[in-house]
Amino acid sequence: MTRQAPLPATAFAPLTLRRLGIDTRDEPVVYMRRGCHVCKFEGFEAKSRVEVWRGGRRVVATLHVMEPSLIGLHEVGLSEAAWRALGGADGDQLRVAHPAPTRSFSAVRAKIFGSPLTPEGVAGIVGDIVAGRYRDIELAALITACSGARLDLAEMVALTGAMIDAGQRLRWNADIVVDKHCVGGLPGNRTTLLVVPIVAACGLLIPKTSSRAITSPAGSADTMETLAPVRLDLATMRRVVERESGCIVWGGAVNLSPADDLLIRVERPLDLDSDGLLVASVLSKKIAAGSNRVLIDLPVGDSAKIRSPEAAAALGAKLVTVGAALGLAVRTIVTDGSQPVGRGIGPALEAFDVLAVLQNAPGAPDDLRQRALTLAGAVLELGGRAAPGAGRMLAQQVLDNGSAWRKFEAICEAQGGMRVPPRARHTHDICARQSGRVVAVDNRRLAGVAKLAGAPKSPAAGVAFHAPLGTEVAPGQSLLTIHADSPGELAHARAYAEAQAQLISIQD
Amino acid sequence: MTRQAPLPATAFAPLTLRRLGIDTRDEPVVYMRRGCHVCKFEGFEAKSRVEVWRGGRRVVATLHVMEPSLIGLHEVGLSEAAWRALGGADGDQLRVAHPAPTRSFSAVRAKIFGSPLTPEGVAGIVGDIVAGRYRDIELAALITACSGARLDLAEMVALTGAMIDAGQRLRWNADIVVDKHCVGGLPGNRTTLLVVPIVAACGLLIPKTSSRAITSPAGSADTMETLAPVRLDLATMRRVVERESGCIVWGGAVNLSPADDLLIRVERPLDLDSDGLLVASVLSKKIAAGSNRVLIDLPVGDSAKIRSPEAAAALGAKLVTVGAALGLAVRTIVTDGSQPVGRGIGPALEAFDVLAVLQNAPGAPDDLRQRALTLAGAVLELGGRAAPGAGRMLAQQVLDNGSAWRKFEAICEAQGGMRVPPRARHTHDICARQSGRVVAVDNRRLAGVAKLAGAPKSPAAGVAFHAPLGTEVAPGQSLLTIHADSPGELAHARAYAEAQAQLISIQD
Repeated sequence: MTRQAPLPATAFAPLTLRRLGIDTRDEPVVYMRRGCHVCKFEGFEAKSRVEVWRGGRRVVATLHVMEPSLIGLHEVGLSEAAWRALGGADGDQLRVAHPAPTRSFSAVRAKIFGSPLTPEGVAGIVGDIVAGRYRDIELAALITACSGARLDLAEMVALTGAMIDAGQRLRWNADIVVDKHCVGGLPGNRTTLLVVPIVAACGLLIPKTSSRAITSPAGSADTMETLAPVRLDLATMRRVVERESGCIVWGGAVNLSPADDLLIRVERPLDLDSDGLLVASVLSKKIAAGSNRVLIDLPVGDSAKIRSPEAAAALGAKLVTVGAALGLAVRTIVTDGSQPVGRGIGPALEAFDVLAVLQNAPGAPDDLRQRALTLAGAVLELGGRAAPGAGRMLAQQVLDNGSAWRKFEAICEAQGGMRVPPRARHTHDICARQSGRVVAVDNRRLAGVAKLAGAPKSPAAGVAFHAPLGTEVAPGQSLLTIHADSPGELAHARAYAEAQAQLISIQD
Repeated sequence: MTRQAPLPATAFAPLTLRRLGIDTRDEPVVYMRRGCHVCKFEGFEAKSRVEVWRGGRRVVATLHVMEPSLIGLHEVGLSEAAWRALGGADGDQLRVAHPAPTRSFSAVRAKIFGSPLTPEGVAGIVGDIVAGRYRDIELAALITACSGARLDLAEMVALTGAMIDAGQRLRWNADIVVDKHCVGGLPGNRTTLLVVPIVAACGLLIPKTSSRAITSPAGSADTMETLAPVRLDLATMRRVVERESGCIVWGGAVNLSPADDLLIRVERPLDLDSDGLLVASVLSKKIAAGSNRVLIDLPVGDSAKIRSPEAAAALGAKLVTVGAALGLAVRTIVTDGSQPVGRGIGPALEAFDVLAVLQNAPGAPDDLRQRALTLAGAVLELGGRAAPGAGRMLAQQVLDNGSAWRKFEAICEAQGGMRVPPRARHTHDICARQSGRVVAVDNRRLAGVAKLAGAPKSPAAGVAFHAPLGTEVAPGQSLLTIHADSPGELAHARAYAEAQAQLISIQD
């Protein structure tokens, strides 16, 4: 948004900046007065795309037109997102002009009509996305065109490469740099916060950048943020990893694969995930973070993101092939995705599970512990720190003897200081109406309850899940507790949960 | 947007309406104060989707959050689009709640991932679109998922049927009701304004509803609007047709196939047209307007919407098959789409061409006249008003003897009174740099110049084209004149035209 470029030839006399204090979230909006001379000269009207310049900084924004009572004739009002992009203060001079056409969108259009994406086409698309030139509807069209099975391996390699090139790229003083990733879809599966300290405690470099939730109630970055700062800049992330061998930071703050973060902004409300975008998203982040050996966890279950072993094998093959084409050794591991992991679903509730495992607390969720040991063992073997078959044992030692917990505390301190996760203000129990045994759990609907309760936006919100498969329940026994920060969200999540007969299936 | 429905259970205490006077075009936006109790209670934040109720009227809108200096604590501010949907005045009581989830989007998601659209799925989608429940990014995803060759015949039939059912449907006291349509892509091809009066002058019923431009510099409704009102309600349209046998009105105002108009809102900025959406769009409008025999003009050319005779045949077959499944007899005609028709490109400039032909003026564009006669002749044969092969002769008689012109004047008067099309304030000639013969014309780039000049938003804007294929030109001779209402648009269109070497190709 802030590159230097010459002012377009048609740019008109300057207008005066006015920061209006309107929060439009991530969408830059500018406000001009009805009948203002620049609108007349340029033919602008409401919802026109305009390019606004303050010195060498620029932003492409949507125009809203205000009545004369709200804004002066020579003023241009900025929404908070537009102001973040341009900086400055009231009274500064701005110029407003027609933005250059988004030429790269013709490559998206060609893809929609059946032509494969070329490396040049993809580079243009990703460059324009990072420059803020894509409207949300254009991002939605791109995401849709790449969803389903519509990207072939060459397109995935091109997209991944373009996404790496569009941002920063880290390099480390080590031959082996490992990483792990889970493709998600499994509520509460917060193994990252266990694997990183175990692996780092064994001395392997693991510079982990995590996403915030895309379509789930919590991403690892959301959960970690309840325990320590995750919005680190690149220099701070480097210092943390050099001191502690590992980190768990939000990828969006370090500008690694920035196009991915912009795509996620639209993927999330559309609730669309696709193999091709997933491969490019995951691998571009790992390569940009400087890792060269990565373990990818593929949970399989009826209501997980991956529904069958065949789908996991197909996705795994794409990850391995695309990774290899870009110099990254990928190993995949298929795990059980039939039900949530641990008890908590939602940032803070998942953090409490992580703390219990790290501290070897009595009653710590054993399923989370076992998964973390399996994955950490595989990473230790992949990184050459343990012989094949000996990784899990090493991981368990490091967890049992407290080294992993001390390493986690040290990483939190290095990232800016450890925090206590928040507790929600309102809770409500959803109880069994009959006695019997839990025979099925719908991950998607359970995630839906947690999201309606406010997760991940409200970090304390979510679901505490008490009824894993096989649990014998009596009528009136709590199956799950909804946690919410506002009564409206609590009511909303509760109404939804009570209407979903398939949420948790109980048989006599 | 205005159906009666019970208030959702979580709706909170009312807020006070304040019409803010912010023009956000077609997107309803509401403004609430940072920290207001409803936002806290419901967990709303900037860009949340909210449902706002005033009595029985409701609208789904996007929330923008304002600083306390701009709005009161118990107020909810409305953009002009939100106010149009809700009505009312400052001080009225509104309720704001979470909108019901857009359940039908799961059918779009399934389509993206390869499952065909079902009649039930499509009915849900179209109903939610008409109820204002789809966000622009969701419309963009739907349009993309239906683009390319991704809709089969059964899906097109289902989509067309659902689009008819979602709006009003006209019935006429006549066994035969004809219509004509051109799939567009050919600048200046304004035959509708000639065919309708010719056919109506012969006594056939032709209740024509036209679109505004989708991706072109002018639609027939835009051109007609420079000559007479086109925003007629259904009762007025009925009176015009009962009196004059024909009309040319804007389809969007009569609520025939309203989903189509909402889709076009997003198709247009994406510049995406697809066979499946085109079939549903065209046929749903014709059937809803009550016609049962329709002629469809398919212009073919290198830079027209349809590029090859094969593509025209494929699209024609879809139109015939889907029409037949819904009781509509469709005949298609393939025409030359290698260059613009007539001289004008843009609403008013095209209207001057139409008037010249209707008035048999010396120098009237003969290509436009010939095309109109061919099409009108085919409609007269299709409607049983002329024997096969005799339609063109009848059409020519009616045009030559002035009946068509008198009928056109009568239709304009019946629609609310004839007007003189406007002239643009600024013009600029693009001249030949060499001598030679015009051997190729790029319709898309020519349309691009007209759009940059302000068409169709500024009705007087566009291009007067002076160099049809075969014209011998000398250096400095004008090839086209750009017409614009603002100097910024003129400069913009001129810069683009001068940079396009392929716009008009001249050979020695």
